[in-house]
Amino acid sequence: MQASDYGASTADQPLDIVSLDRLDAAVKEVIPEAGYEFVSGGAGDEWTLHENRRAFDDFRIEPKRLRGVSPEVDLSIELLGQSLPFPIFTAPMGAHGMVHEEAEVATARGTGMAGTLYCSSGASHRTLEEIAEATQGPKWFQLYWNNDTEVTRSLLDRAKAAGYSAIVLTADALGPGQPDDFKAMSSPFRPDMVFGNHDPERGGSGNFFDQKLDLDTNAIKFIKDQTRLPVIVKGLLRADDADRSISAGADAIQVSNHGGRQIDGVPASIAALPDVVATVNGRVPVIMDGGVRRGIDVVRALAMGADAVAVGRPVLYGLGLGGAQGVQSVLEHLRAELQSAMLLSGAAKLADLDPSFINLVGASAEASRS
Amino acid sequence: MQASDYGASTADQPLDIVSLDRLDAAVKEVIPEAGYEFVSGGAGDEWTLHENRRAFDDFRIEPKRLRGVSPEVDLSIELLGQSLPFPIFTAPMGAHGMVHEEAEVATARGTGMAGTLYCSSGASHRTLEEIAEATQGPKWFQLYWNNDTEVTRSLLDRAKAAGYSAIVLTADALGPGQPDDFKAMSSPFRPDMVFGNHDPERGGSGNFFDQKLDLDTNAIKFIKDQTRLPVIVKGLLRADDADRSISAGADAIQVSNHGGRQIDGVPASIAALPDVVATVNGRVPVIMDGGVRRGIDVVRALAMGADAVAVGRPVLYGLGLGGAQGVQSVLEHLRAELQSAMLLSGAAKLADLDPSFINLVGASAEASRS
Amino acid sequence: MQASDYGASTADQPLDIVSLDRLDAAVKEVIPEAGYEFVSGGAGDEWTLHENRRAFDDFRIEPKRLRGVSPEVDLSIELLGQSLPFPIFTAPMGAHGMVHEEAEVATARGTGMAGTLYCSSGASHRTLEEIAEATQGPKWFQLYWNNDTEVTRSLLDRAKAAGYSAIVLTADALGPGQPDDFKAMSSPFRPDMVFGNHDPERGGSGNFFDQKLDLDTNAIKFIKDQTRLPVIVKGLLRADDADRSISAGADAIQVSNHGGRQIDGVPASIAALPDVVATVNGRVPVIMDGGVRRGIDVVRALAMGADAVAVGRPVLYGLGLGGAQGVQSVLEHLRAELQSAMLLSGAAKLADLDPSFINLVGASAEASRS
Amino acid sequence: MQASDYGASTADQPLDIVSLDRLDAAVKEVIPEAGYEFVSGGAGDEWTLHENRRAFDDFRIEPKRLRGVSPEVDLSIELLGQSLPFPIFTAPMGAHGMVHEEAEVATARGTGMAGTLYCSSGASHRTLEEIAEATQGPKWFQLYWNNDTEVTRSLLDRAKAAGYSAIVLTADALGPGQPDDFKAMSSPFRPDMVFGNHDPERGGSGNFFDQKLDLDTNAIKFIKDQTRLPVIVKGLLRADDADRSISAGADAIQVSNHGGRQIDGVPASIAALPDVVATVNGRVPVIMDGGVRRGIDVVRALAMGADAVAVGRPVLYGLGLGGAQGVQSVLEHLRAELQSAMLLSGAAKLADLDPSFINLVGASAEASRS
Repeated sequence: MQASDYGASTADQPLDIVSLDRLDAAVKEVIPEAGYEFVSGGAGDEWTLHENRRAFDDFRIEPKRLRGVSPEVDLSIELLGQSLPFPIFTAPMGAHGMVHEEAEVATARGTGMAGTLYCSSGASHRTLEEIAEATQGPKWFQLYWNNDTEVTRSLLDRAKAAGYSAIVLTADALGPGQPDDFKAMSSPFRPDMVFGNHDPERGGSGNFFDQKLDLDTNAIKFIKDQTRLPVIVKGLLRADDADRSISAGADAIQVSNHGGRQIDGVPASIAALPDVVATVNGRVPVIMDGGVRRGIDVVRALAMGADAVAVGRPVLYGLGLGGAQGVQSVLEHLRAELQSAMLLSGAAKLADLDPSFINLVGASAEASRS
Repeated sequence: MQASDYGASTADQPLDIVSLDRLDAAVKEVIPEAGYEFVSGGAGDEWTLHENRRAFDDFRIEPKRLRGVSPEVDLSIELLGQSLPFPIFTAPMGAHGMVHEEAEVATARGTGMAGTLYCSSGASHRTLEEIAEATQGPKWFQLYWNNDTEVTRSLLDRAKAAGYSAIVLTADALGPGQPDDFKAMSSPFRPDMVFGNHDPERGGSGNFFDQKLDLDTNAIKFIKDQTRLPVIVKGLLRADDADRSISAGADAIQVSNHGGRQIDGVPASIAALPDVVATVNGRVPVIMDGGVRRGIDVVRALAMGADAVAVGRPVLYGLGLGGAQGVQSVLEHLRAELQSAMLLSGAAKLADLDPSFINLVGASAEASRS
Repeated sequence: MQASDYGASTADQPLDIVSLDRLDAAVKEVIPEAGYEFVSGGAGDEWTLHENRRAFDDFRIEPKRLRGVSPEVDLSIELLGQSLPFPIFTAPMGAHGMVHEEAEVATARGTGMAGTLYCSSGASHRTLEEIAEATQGPKWFQLYWNNDTEVTRSLLDRAKAAGYSAIVLTADALGPGQPDDFKAMSSPFRPDMVFGNHDPERGGSGNFFDQKLDLDTNAIKFIKDQTRLPVIVKGLLRADDADRSISAGADAIQVSNHGGRQIDGVPASIAALPDVVATVNGRVPVIMDGGVRRGIDVVRALAMGADAVAVGRPVLYGLGLGGAQGVQSVLEHLRAELQSAMLLSGAAKLADLDPSFINLVGASAEASRS
Repeated sequence: MQASDYGASTADQPLDIVSLDRLDAAVKEVIPEAGYEFVSGGAGDEWTLHENRRAFDDFRIEPKRLRGVSPEVDLSIELLGQSLPFPIFTAPMGAHGMVHEEAEVATARGTGMAGTLYCSSGASHRTLEEIAEATQGPKWFQLYWNNDTEVTRSLLDRAKAAGYSAIVLTADALGPGQPDDFKAMSSPFRPDMVFGNHDPERGGSGNFFDQKLDLDTNAIKFIKDQTRLPVIVKGLLRADDADRSISAGADAIQVSNHGGRQIDGVPASIAALPDVVATVNGRVPVIMDGGVRRGIDVVRALAMGADAVAVGRPVLYGLGLGGAQGVQSVLEHLRAELQSAMLLSGAAKLADLDPSFINLVGASAEASRS
């Protein structure tokens, strides 16, 4: 593949990963600054962006010992009818061409090589059909609702036809989602790529930017009627919104603050998770994304009630450093860390993970005080 | 306009603003060091100055989703009989000549160009009449009470005559209000400008520095009797003081610590707001200032019970970088951020903002513990 | 005065002080490194040293407004029969020759020039008689109890004879009290000065280092019987120790952790104060020292129940930078800051200061949550 | 002794120690980078590694004064039938050849020279017999359980024969235990040393890496039946695990997170201690390790219920800087600091240390609030 003037990565190699956090500095060296700032940044002062990581520290793992836990933990799960080899998948993210010349086709292929779920963003540079073809694994389609209902309907029909097994309704993408550092560069999106799903030359219609912002929970029923596919509502941080969404037919809830990219000053996803889990109370699966970088983060999220976690930026860093193989390396590294973290936490199987593994900061201190 | 020896800004241009915080470093490059240190600093160790910003992080926004909120939120408010296009206005600040050669005339003109309220400081370099003439928008006059009652009375009469629609009684300006870094420079105020309102050549009388410091709530009635204008008591941080002021006739309360410029070690304005709001209990409007830099800060303040917010330093930075047009840019930038933050918070109208949008730090953690 | 080989300061000039904190960097430039490290450092990791300052931030001032408070606040107090012009005095500190060639004689003279109390350390380079003669103000003598009872008795008799009006029993000086950075220099005390009070050539006896460490509260009665002077027990952080000391005859309690110089990991003095005050319950005066650098710190300490505060390192920095006049400048600067802080806090007189002026961190947040 | 190509230390000298923390920078200069990174690092983001130190700050010492405490505190204890001159000993650590050419033989000799207990790691470079011979003091053997039961049995038999007086069952060593910075160097273990206990040329059998990870509490009885020696279960952070271990026959509990080397995100040892102590309730001794660097840390751990503490990295830093004599210096420095800290805390004997010496952060603040 020929590199463009923009100069995104053309890498295709497996990665020797020490930790996902270390990919950040590495990818900054090899992709265009515009791509790095667009992907790595967050909204406003990036308080929520950093809080997504920091807040994990508030939930300490209380490891269980001498419980006869085998190192061969089964990590597979069933999620909305799909089998995943481990409870980690690729979060929907737009505009992968900012990172790699192959864009989402490489990300989807790499995710499929790791055997797990690819969630295709409605804001992809490549078309949903090209992406669907690229992965051998399970796949979901994330919808941006167009003001033109026919455009929305067309996207849903195409997604179903292309084999996506569920639709993700993003509830929190209500702004441009551009980091300040990217805006300070005058928002240099690459000129040679457009949003593939709306490209008339590739079977698309409508204008991506003509999004409907005043969505309500009726959107859930619309999607289900149109596709007969399960609907995940993504981008909730409140328990009442989860409850309202389930009442309106949602088949899963994804706790998320959009990677801290939409509105700053909202809680970390991991901090918002417990209240949502308590209210959902097992009626539907709960997914979370936001700040997952370590196997221990997955342990915490699952112990606090998530059924699976989605990972964003590290996958794109893997894409930039290694293309499809890099994406595979990232997901497999996280799977291996989860395997080790399960053993080190003393959890014999995923179903064992419950709040008894979590020591909320200050709790033991208070106990010892009374 | 000819620049003086002092060398304040003569800029007059619109600004392309990424964030208000970024204006700080930019303005530092273009105005005299004395002006920058005088404006940007705070009292003592500047703990309160920084706390005014940091404390917002304690009040996390809990965004509401899928509520059918239109992106076209009406931001206009009525405040003491004035219509404002958005609930943000220019806080009273003295000595704008430290920043720009046109001083308050440019600030007032720019505020008026943005359509919102200008609050004129009694410590202005230009006269209150010149300032009143400069703005087409609503305007309030902030009084420094002179030990000579006739001087005080004259200021009030002039303010009414010049068309100011309310009087702000500043309750907390009891010291010189000079940052340590400015004092370390030997407090280099510009020699070629005086406090305009007391300049005998421009219709003034008395000595600005001869202020009465032992004010009590009787001052409120005095102003009302003299002017028949509503009185805002500014600079309160305690609920009991708000209550006493209302009992004495105050028509509004402004929670403020004077931008952290008078006494260090007092709470952030946003932290002091809830108790005041609870005690005021809707009897009069509550305004807050101190640390507002983002649209999300306005959302937080309003959700916690403020009716409007005032903004200080960023307006002066806009003044330094762009004169009247820069001031307009600052206020319009904040208005645009508020518009976006409302949508991203899931608030359909200002009246919807209430404490249900706020997640006090630690609250959800405690909920999940019990 | 001729400088020694050691090269301590010989300065004698008034200081133009912006803030006491800024004296630290300034004095570091002009006194020997050994002196600076000895004075400025604390025990161990210096956690308590820094906590003595930081903990003030936990106790926010809730300023009262429009209360008719005059700027002319009377700051004078009576303390154990002595009149002080303001409730701030010089804490006992040893070995001033590490800072200034005149040693304690200059510190005492400067303290007297400021009109306030000098507390003379038993570990002085100059004799207690020389020091007593140097100050025109009130003075106390701080005793290090010698294993040889006759030495102890002699020190007490000399102190009474020299006109000291009270004896300070230091309860917490149980180790060498040397900062790690000073020990890393091999503890370079100056070779040309000895502990004056034990110098046989100057009327002394015994060996300073032969201290009795297993003191108990009987020491209080011994001192009172021997001197008929009031006894201040200094170095308590626990309410029960204050209670035991009062039962044993103590006339005042000084909450102190010895400037963080004896044992690290103990609470800040200001944090320990409230419990002690509650238990003392007005039976005797309570003094505190540790981290007082600003007028607002004095306001906080007094509002939380202290009757007076002692100040240490800044006085020695004033000594190094300006000799006796520098000491006077330091104490008068703090008095001026206190005057201003009283007005800015809205306290008309010292007796008004009570816990209603203090907002413990988190308290208002909790109020707004319920 | 001849240095190898690897170039570990060959030092053998007493150390002049200011503080144990300062040994870190010093040893970094003199041992190979691989050794330094291997020893100094921790798991993952090293949150727990740093928290092991930071969490001590949450437990402030409330020193008792004027209690007649003699400076000659008896620090000796009895622990599982062994007399220790002070309640501090050398924690089990593997691969000392990464630091010093003599490896564990020097560490054990130095520990014995200080008169205290050496706990020999199953992952030693030297054989357990060589190590046993090197120390004149008490010694325990830490077992890594081999999948081959005969290997495990052989290790236990050899340990008993070599004179080890107790067996430490490590419950938390379930992963490679390599810091990320060491992995980033490609885990450069020295090629010229193997795990001595499994070296067929030195009487060993089996493969060290063939460890049994799914241990349960039955392991305790197996060891006791095989050796008739007391068993310490090391690596617990949960009270229920301590209770289960005691029910299964454990003779002591060691609260530990393996120096933050196995799993990140778990609580500091000192934070986990109180709950374990409360549940153990005196049935067996409780040991803690993790972050002990100061005499005051030992005071805190003992006041919170530990019977003794183990120290790791500082001992290896002493080894690197001074060989056996350096190890002795480290342990004796900590003993001297404990002696001083006891006096400064006002504790007359170890048995006096109880929770009344500890002020949990925030507790006094809350008391003063109510």
